[in-house]
Amino acid sequence: MYIAVMGYGVVGSGVVKVLQMNRDHISRKSRHGTIDVKYILDIKEINDENAHLVTKDFNDILNDSEVHVVVETMGGLHPAFEFVSACLKAGKSVVTSNKELVAEKGLELLTLARANQVNFVFEASVAGGIPVIRPISGSLNGNEIQEVAGIINGTTNFILTKMIDENMDYNTALKLAQENGYAEKDPTADVEGIDACRKICILSALAFGKHVYPGQVYTQGISKLELKDVEYAGDLGYVIKLLARSKKIGDQISVVVTPALVKKSSMLACVNGVNNAVLVRANAVGEILMYGPGAGMLPTASAVVGDVIDCCNHYMRPKFFGWLEDASEDFVRDYTESETSLFVRLSADSDKAKINELFGNVQFIEKEDIAFLTPVAVEKELREKLAVLGDKVKSVIHVTDF
Amino acid sequence: MYIAVMGYGVVGSGVVKVLQMNRDHISRKSRHGTIDVKYILDIKEINDENAHLVTKDFNDILNDSEVHVVVETMGGLHPAFEFVSACLKAGKSVVTSNKELVAEKGLELLTLARANQVNFVFEASVAGGIPVIRPISGSLNGNEIQEVAGIINGTTNFILTKMIDENMDYNTALKLAQENGYAEKDPTADVEGIDACRKICILSALAFGKHVYPGQVYTQGISKLELKDVEYAGDLGYVIKLLARSKKIGDQISVVVTPALVKKSSMLACVNGVNNAVLVRANAVGEILMYGPGAGMLPTASAVVGDVIDCCNHYMRPKFFGWLEDASEDFVRDYTESETSLFVRLSADSDKAKINELFGNVQFIEKEDIAFLTPVAVEKELREKLAVLGDKVKSVIHVTDF
Repeated sequence: MYIAVMGYGVVGSGVVKVLQMNRDHISRKSRHGTIDVKYILDIKEINDENAHLVTKDFNDILNDSEVHVVVETMGGLHPAFEFVSACLKAGKSVVTSNKELVAEKGLELLTLARANQVNFVFEASVAGGIPVIRPISGSLNGNEIQEVAGIINGTTNFILTKMIDENMDYNTALKLAQENGYAEKDPTADVEGIDACRKICILSALAFGKHVYPGQVYTQGISKLELKDVEYAGDLGYVIKLLARSKKIGDQISVVVTPALVKKSSMLACVNGVNNAVLVRANAVGEILMYGPGAGMLPTASAVVGDVIDCCNHYMRPKFFGWLEDASEDFVRDYTESETSLFVRLSADSDKAKINELFGNVQFIEKEDIAFLTPVAVEKELREKLAVLGDKVKSVIHVTDF
Repeated sequence: MYIAVMGYGVVGSGVVKVLQMNRDHISRKSRHGTIDVKYILDIKEINDENAHLVTKDFNDILNDSEVHVVVETMGGLHPAFEFVSACLKAGKSVVTSNKELVAEKGLELLTLARANQVNFVFEASVAGGIPVIRPISGSLNGNEIQEVAGIINGTTNFILTKMIDENMDYNTALKLAQENGYAEKDPTADVEGIDACRKICILSALAFGKHVYPGQVYTQGISKLELKDVEYAGDLGYVIKLLARSKKIGDQISVVVTPALVKKSSMLACVNGVNNAVLVRANAVGEILMYGPGAGMLPTASAVVGDVIDCCNHYMRPKFFGWLEDASEDFVRDYTESETSLFVRLSADSDKAKINELFGNVQFIEKEDIAFLTPVAVEKELREKLAVLGDKVKSVIHVTDF
């Protein structure tokens, strides 16, 4: 079977590489024998051994009836969206690693795919090489999913691991991440949680059946986190991770991306460096977790190629993700109306008697600053009480039950 | 769509329960709408709300053309094998949780299923509710798998966790496992590694394409493990887990079930209590791990029901596992010909100068006994050297690179 690859950057070139290096193996896993790349679409000059496959004209792919599956690894919304739409309309299945595209246009593209009896699949868009989408939307189909929580940004997890294990401050850790190629020169999308937000939108849609858009998710990154937060949380038995969480509460869901405390004994606390993990709670299975490399050329290509083989094997048989409609404003509730405990760090001269009066008797960590955990209550009410303490409050971080 | 459930024990009754409690949800995940149980086959008297579905005659199921999918949760080889074979021949897909059946008869039953254009699927046979089979034989299809390693027996992991965390001796921990319902009255199949052996046979077949039979796997349980081993391994930075491992080496594989040392920093070391985890190393993705409850009524039922929905959605379209032939004796190599490091515990009066002469300068843990780790070498050669030390050697345990 022939495929085309649009975008020959890190992921796209990885896809071609994996298809070539594992060609014989893949031919044994595919119902239709070998899978070969017929076109590579890219605007830049390519001089490697695949140069003869390069085209700059998208129509070469669109109009070639031998190409049944198209891989989109260009990134960004445009022209990816237009190209993918055109391919689906032309009866070609599309495999993408583009989380922005899926988070913003997933429902529209899945609807288009179904109408044309082809597949639109995106395992690589969340957590790189880790199989998460197939388990959630296949293996767990017998369950009502209650909660999905993930460490789904490798850059921030690398930085946090350095802060936790080596007492390295945020800026030094970020610089190290950039030097190692784990962070972009402009790290905003990673460190401010924008990347994780896109991914939790995709996981929410798969878990709860409605398209949650990035604009509906409260998103806070790690750029304001101080070493003291990490240290004091450690004293209380927790580590701080950037967690993306989506939880069913009644007929609604609460979705946030925030730094959060997880118990040191939790599997999530064991996820270090650029690795990712996705945890699912569901009413029959209980709690499962999937762990592995959340980014990188070959791991991400692994997920793309798995999807390509699946598209070849399910030619003209669209997969069903149950991702059926937009999430209304009602469906995504104000996260501050949910119950949580909060980690609070304050200056040492804060009024401890007042704090105990507000929150009941709490256990203080007393160092240069002081810190404590509130009891579990509605976040809005907790924050109203904290407002009484004014600018003594230096940081407030969610405490999870993981 | 109608299904039948053969065997109304813990798993079978869990399957019926999950299908009933999540009925509406499941109908939305299934292409063919609701999934209802038409028959329950069991020889014992059943007096619960499903009593009206019970039959004692297998032919009721076999001859009912409305039943498209049959769940086998009877356990054991006979009559499970005969019943499953008859169902497949009659054009019914079969979902099983029976690891003994899959480990002994998997190839034969998959061949029969393919010949009849139906499915034979068995997600629940390994690691309970954790999705492992679909990820390995689907998501990772673009990879050459290099190694599979798992903590795939909850009973022994519970016992080991108690030994590690609470310094509890083996017999006390086993008794506690029995009191909690985690171990059978006769715990042999669990503690001697027989259960884990069946599961690694199934994982080996999926990873490497050939049916490895339990008789081909060197299997050693945890019943001879002493607290001193756990303690000294801890001093060296390791925990002891019962690991089932299958590794590609050239054109062969090495498969064993043994207690083994894993680094405390490893994700496998974080897997505690009755939980299971399966780790996969593959040439594109690198290392991934899947974690969760390895047994129990509802988790195992979760896996069975996921497979049932898949069978309904893939009616008359057999899945392809690439599990194609028996593993020859040549294919499964003598594990002692592979390289490893060994943890060795000896009596305190052992000849340390001799040990250093045999193994190079090693680091000793010196307590009531002494212990050390050998360098990495061919196991057979290491054991020949250890033989020189005679009955001073009290225990020898594999050290892994996890």
